[in-house]
Amino acid sequence: MTAEILAVGTELLLGQIANTNAQYISQRLAELGISVFFHSVVGDNPARLEETLKRALDRSDIVITTGGLGPTKDDLTKEVIAKAMNRKLVFHEDILEKVRDFFMRKHRIMVKNNEKQAYMPDNSLVIPNLNGTAPGCIIEEGEKAVIMLPGPPNEMQPMFNESVFPYLKQKTGLVLVSKMLKIFGIGESEMESRLIDLIEKQNNPTIAPYVSQGEVTVRVTARCPDKEEALKLLNPVVNDIKERLGDFVYSEEGETLEQVVFNLLNEKKLVMATAESCTGGLLAGRITSLPGASGVFDKGFITYSNKSKVDELGVNQETIDKFGAVSRETALEMVNGLRKKTSAQVCVSITGIAGPGGGTPDKPVGLVYIGVSVGDRVVCKSYDLMGNRERIRNGACMRALDIIRRLILGLDI
Amino acid sequence: MTAEILAVGTELLLGQIANTNAQYISQRLAELGISVFFHSVVGDNPARLEETLKRALDRSDIVITTGGLGPTKDDLTKEVIAKAMNRKLVFHEDILEKVRDFFMRKHRIMVKNNEKQAYMPDNSLVIPNLNGTAPGCIIEEGEKAVIMLPGPPNEMQPMFNESVFPYLKQKTGLVLVSKMLKIFGIGESEMESRLIDLIEKQNNPTIAPYVSQGEVTVRVTARCPDKEEALKLLNPVVNDIKERLGDFVYSEEGETLEQVVFNLLNEKKLVMATAESCTGGLLAGRITSLPGASGVFDKGFITYSNKSKVDELGVNQETIDKFGAVSRETALEMVNGLRKKTSAQVCVSITGIAGPGGGTPDKPVGLVYIGVSVGDRVVCKSYDLMGNRERIRNGACMRALDIIRRLILGLDI
Repeated sequence: MTAEILAVGTELLLGQIANTNAQYISQRLAELGISVFFHSVVGDNPARLEETLKRALDRSDIVITTGGLGPTKDDLTKEVIAKAMNRKLVFHEDILEKVRDFFMRKHRIMVKNNEKQAYMPDNSLVIPNLNGTAPGCIIEEGEKAVIMLPGPPNEMQPMFNESVFPYLKQKTGLVLVSKMLKIFGIGESEMESRLIDLIEKQNNPTIAPYVSQGEVTVRVTARCPDKEEALKLLNPVVNDIKERLGDFVYSEEGETLEQVVFNLLNEKKLVMATAESCTGGLLAGRITSLPGASGVFDKGFITYSNKSKVDELGVNQETIDKFGAVSRETALEMVNGLRKKTSAQVCVSITGIAGPGGGTPDKPVGLVYIGVSVGDRVVCKSYDLMGNRERIRNGACMRALDIIRRLILGLDI
Repeated sequence: MTAEILAVGTELLLGQIANTNAQYISQRLAELGISVFFHSVVGDNPARLEETLKRALDRSDIVITTGGLGPTKDDLTKEVIAKAMNRKLVFHEDILEKVRDFFMRKHRIMVKNNEKQAYMPDNSLVIPNLNGTAPGCIIEEGEKAVIMLPGPPNEMQPMFNESVFPYLKQKTGLVLVSKMLKIFGIGESEMESRLIDLIEKQNNPTIAPYVSQGEVTVRVTARCPDKEEALKLLNPVVNDIKERLGDFVYSEEGETLEQVVFNLLNEKKLVMATAESCTGGLLAGRITSLPGASGVFDKGFITYSNKSKVDELGVNQETIDKFGAVSRETALEMVNGLRKKTSAQVCVSITGIAGPGGGTPDKPVGLVYIGVSVGDRVVCKSYDLMGNRERIRNGACMRALDIIRRLILGLDI
């Protein structure tokens, strides 16, 4: 079964909002094994909407529209689609009652243009909207269907979940199972060259690699009439990929690297502490972004100035003078100083040159030293990171997290 | 002039990412007065890409594609478009050199599939990519043009700004002047109600309000054949808006709140230090995200556990026992303790309940206390912030920054 998503709204074409509805609906359709081949966005313009709708209906089984169901003159989705599909709009007294109710509960007066929302295409299934005034609807035509939903995500999402998802699930009769492998420490192209034959012959399960913010993800998805069968297709492929990529794979469930480290700390009953220079609190910020962080995080120092490295972590001024604040020696003294100031079993220090200024031929922008201790084992690694200040700082955090993961799991670093 | 945006990538159709590129490009095109009538998304599928491209070229003057320029087999945008427009792909030695360089700087081996990125459509303008390996390009055909950009926003955006925006600007023959008012401390609907008459009658300049991550932005843009004239249209409207919104406006140049605070610290030769609990380093992370942060930031403490508040900041254990770690008293002892540990003139403490757990009827999730000192003046404010953990932590950082701004400028807090 194929579907496409057609968003209606000039605000999308002006870039005032992103089309997050298309993302949300696509995710849910993927779960159902419904293939989405197109997203489109058109403005509040009847001719362009009709043209796009007709093409969508021609080439897809299901067309889901978002937006343009409200009370204003610009809201024309229902009117245009009803006309294109030769349906009359029919007045529903019970819908008007609900709209009136909605205004009453909000202590607001219902302006007359709201009556428009009580007209629905003849012979359509009405989708109730509990969080707004505009109901949605489904028009079926033979095997095809057009599903209209309102634009605001807080109205659209519950309507999709409560009405549309069950409706579509019944239509497909398929179950879908997927794994999301997360990979760090290997480039996209290197990864692909290791997986190329699998990617080329993929069918069911499908294999989808993609990259965002330094993390590489491979989603593997199998679709079958029942779950058992889907797992039988899925597992051997997932295991094959894991074998080829080894311990670069840090999650099968799409978790972030900080979530994986957090889980490891939790499991092993370890607590961590941080001493950050160039990352300025970002590493601590990532770990503490997770609910329950107080169980695994003791404290952090942001020792940005040289003096603060000396005062707070007991780094020797001579070490900084001789080797520089960005050096293996300073990183090690930072992490060792931190160990004295906390009872945390996992300590991390980061010092580097995030740029854009501050680089020298000897120590270019992107040079980062990371010290990590787990129990009595202390390591220090250096990296030459690329990109702008933000990427270098993020990259340093990712590498620090990966070192922690590897040390806790006893993997090579 | 009309444009449309065509994103290529199965990851979009699977809902793995949102099409934020279309939003970004649409905003910039709106500034140029270029009308966008369609967004489309297709997967990594040659036939559907070609079909969609041809339709786009038929109905629009400019087609901007994002995605599908990378080294992998799935990346087929350039190949399909070149074929559709009857252009050969030509090898560029200098591009390959740059790709090789990129890998060298990363100390990584260039896998052979990367060579694909050095082939560009015959007779096209190459758009250099400083943050990745895949260059973009512009193919002109008569008055029309297809502009291909890579998918990762951190590559696409600089390329759009440095190459595509000037290219399109020249094509339109208009000069465009805009101000980006940044607003904090007032809700979107309250702001809109103060500006509604201006927004309704807008034409030139255009007024585009939008909201993202707790910040409200109003972009005001005038278009004219020359700059003088544009400024004459722009300035009265900007001044009118500023009068209506008062000191909620913290920038006219689209700066972030941390950039504004950074600039104030720099100007007044002030240095800041932080003591963070629930925000876990995020506030320090924001300030140190700015180049030159070492001039305005001394050090930070992430005192997540109660013990670390006592050990590092000298908070009295009795204060925590009596009033709780999330209390005015603790926030004040944190900021006063911090003042003793640093010579920084601006000190900030944040303690709160970021959730989802940890709330009580007395102290619900979202309760945050922020202590700020500038010189000898010490204030403490409390907030009931809404939303999930991420929103509460971000909101606390924003409020802390706004208090610093207001104290330094002598505004009401």
